[in-house]
Amino acid sequence: MINTDINLVSMGQRAKQAARKLAAAPTDLKNRALVAIADALDSQRESILAENALDLADGKQNGLSEALLDRLNLQKRLDGIIADVRKVATLPDPVGEVIESRTLPNDLKLSRRRTPIGVFGVIYEARPNVTVDVAALTVKSGNTAILRGGKETLRSNTALVNVIREAVASVGLPADAIQYIESTDRAYVGELLKLYEYVDIIIPRGGAGLHKFCRENSTIPVITGGVGICHLYVEPTADFDKALDIIHNAKTHRPSVCNALDTVLVHESIAAEFLPRVVEHLGNDGVTFKAEPRAIEYVRDYDSVKAAGPDDFSTEWMALICGLKVVDTLDEAIDHIEANSLGHSDGILTQDADSAARFLNEVNSSAVFWNASTRFNDGGQFGLGAELAVSTQKLHVRGPMALEGMTTYKWVVEGTGQVRS
Amino acid sequence: MINTDINLVSMGQRAKQAARKLAAAPTDLKNRALVAIADALDSQRESILAENALDLADGKQNGLSEALLDRLNLQKRLDGIIADVRKVATLPDPVGEVIESRTLPNDLKLSRRRTPIGVFGVIYEARPNVTVDVAALTVKSGNTAILRGGKETLRSNTALVNVIREAVASVGLPADAIQYIESTDRAYVGELLKLYEYVDIIIPRGGAGLHKFCRENSTIPVITGGVGICHLYVEPTADFDKALDIIHNAKTHRPSVCNALDTVLVHESIAAEFLPRVVEHLGNDGVTFKAEPRAIEYVRDYDSVKAAGPDDFSTEWMALICGLKVVDTLDEAIDHIEANSLGHSDGILTQDADSAARFLNEVNSSAVFWNASTRFNDGGQFGLGAELAVSTQKLHVRGPMALEGMTTYKWVVEGTGQVRS
Repeated sequence: MINTDINLVSMGQRAKQAARKLAAAPTDLKNRALVAIADALDSQRESILAENALDLADGKQNGLSEALLDRLNLQKRLDGIIADVRKVATLPDPVGEVIESRTLPNDLKLSRRRTPIGVFGVIYEARPNVTVDVAALTVKSGNTAILRGGKETLRSNTALVNVIREAVASVGLPADAIQYIESTDRAYVGELLKLYEYVDIIIPRGGAGLHKFCRENSTIPVITGGVGICHLYVEPTADFDKALDIIHNAKTHRPSVCNALDTVLVHESIAAEFLPRVVEHLGNDGVTFKAEPRAIEYVRDYDSVKAAGPDDFSTEWMALICGLKVVDTLDEAIDHIEANSLGHSDGILTQDADSAARFLNEVNSSAVFWNASTRFNDGGQFGLGAELAVSTQKLHVRGPMALEGMTTYKWVVEGTGQVRS
Repeated sequence: MINTDINLVSMGQRAKQAARKLAAAPTDLKNRALVAIADALDSQRESILAENALDLADGKQNGLSEALLDRLNLQKRLDGIIADVRKVATLPDPVGEVIESRTLPNDLKLSRRRTPIGVFGVIYEARPNVTVDVAALTVKSGNTAILRGGKETLRSNTALVNVIREAVASVGLPADAIQYIESTDRAYVGELLKLYEYVDIIIPRGGAGLHKFCRENSTIPVITGGVGICHLYVEPTADFDKALDIIHNAKTHRPSVCNALDTVLVHESIAAEFLPRVVEHLGNDGVTFKAEPRAIEYVRDYDSVKAAGPDDFSTEWMALICGLKVVDTLDEAIDHIEANSLGHSDGILTQDADSAARFLNEVNSSAVFWNASTRFNDGGQFGLGAELAVSTQKLHVRGPMALEGMTTYKWVVEGTGQVRS
């Protein structure tokens, strides 16, 4: 059932109107909406999965890859999705928090209070689980959202959003808290990016191309992220066994995500010993390597090692591929990272606290690590609960964008007749 | 002396390079740079004022208004400007502050630390004092800046920036911390807005037209603000004498700034008594009024009152003009404000704490006021020190953008070999 009568301005107006209701909603009411969403997804799973099966059948017919079909498949994911919604209901509500307060010399009482941002525009790919994740986080943080998912999931998303809207309305909050652009026409993405009057923030969840498109076409502030070229630099004092475990984990634990390792930098004084161990340890799990000329000297006998090409250190691999490079100094390592990292997750493996302090201070990424895997840059791992995105831009939020990152603040000034002199 | 050989990409690269040095600079060194700037402005005031005199002479010849010529004139302002730089040197350094820290269940030590943003692009009008203000705040916050001021002040700004750059270099920090686009060609503004690779944030300081241009053309995050349609709503329980003082202060204290009052909303039950008092009290200082039909009933005998036109409640007056409107309920007042405010500064005048609480909660502006003048929405007044801008957007910073607003944060993760399972 495709909606052929889409009016984005009207959607924007309704989202903005609903946002006032959500902003004023007490925590308990928002939590009841989340429980209602979870219950409704559970009780209406048959009809949701029927629509999902139609998307899957089309996907197969259109030759989608197994990986894409797997992402699209709700059958084995719905229980986890429902559990996640229930979990968001248990997280603390950031709205209303007093960030700071003080009394000014003229007796004005000044406080800074956390408030919702307003209307989110979220653009994502063929992952129907994102639809539910975003809806739950949006409602909990007192915001509203206009969603636009991948074209391969239109029926799944429409079914999910209908269930969510009904559930939200069932507790007395506006159904328009969550709206979905029910069309595969990409022109609506461009239109959404210009809805400056109604939409407060754009979250693109996808590849570098989508981010670039949003950055270049949006008149609304955009939070970009979810793309990383991640580095680990190994110093001579590193505990080699632990360093190998960390490199192995960062590269192989989930190679297709943004906090996965892309490049290992090794100090020249340990390259002869350490590089072959990296290649052997990770090679067992199918990792292949792209080594620059100085690194390849030490590992040229391994079939899994190839000479790095000119762009190989500025590539996010998203696969079991790892760059290898030898450096002479900590400065050279930091310079390489600053030149090639996209500011996501970078780390140093060392027992030297001074080197670590310099690295942590000077490498300007959303998260910097000392003797730990880059895979920890994640809202759940950081104890922030679920995340809407992982930001690599410097304004508003860096790293995991969880509930707090979905809020802003306002200044509240309480007086007794004060005027400015 | 016009620089005809401007290469913005090269300026961006130098700014980014310098930003690494500024980010790592200790507080003491940055403060010494500020003192050096103040000393140099003082000792080189003759040559600065000579260049300023040339700008002023051109301005007169080109028929600039007295108001513009006054803004351009450094003669009577330089002492204040120098004192402001010395004051910024005494403010606390936000860089390095640990915003939060905790140990995760897996013993990872996690902290969130304040860091500089990087490179600022600041576009402003014919106010050479802004050049020095921005330079001082930029250096103090560990950032660097590319500046572009109004065309009428090119010689003044060039002279100031040369002095600033020399002073910064004299303490061992890079002169390229502060660069100036030495050209009156507006094409460079468009070019600056596309320097995504090197510039982290754009601050337009000017009118709504400049903000719109930046929003629509920048691929870099923009902080807009400095434009406000500000409201005060007077409830029946208000202390009328105090309310009149506050309205008078908000409207007449400095009518040309963004936190000046634009519209007074009055509850219908007190309109007959209160509106004539407003008109008389403010009329003495030359304020004229634009009243909507219900308001004009009560004040039609005053020459200073005219019927409001269709756009008069969506206009930032920047002058001794005040809109008057009668409302029946608090809800109607809030609805009017939400429809017309630009999210800068809005307040309620009442003795009813419940009404005040609802207003402060539901009006979504950068600062909301209860029984106080909107003129307090200001970095200095809020105790934040000098401000770079007053933001009316919801991301990153709202209201006064002072030193803290010129920073971001990064996550620092310290481990002992932890991997993700």
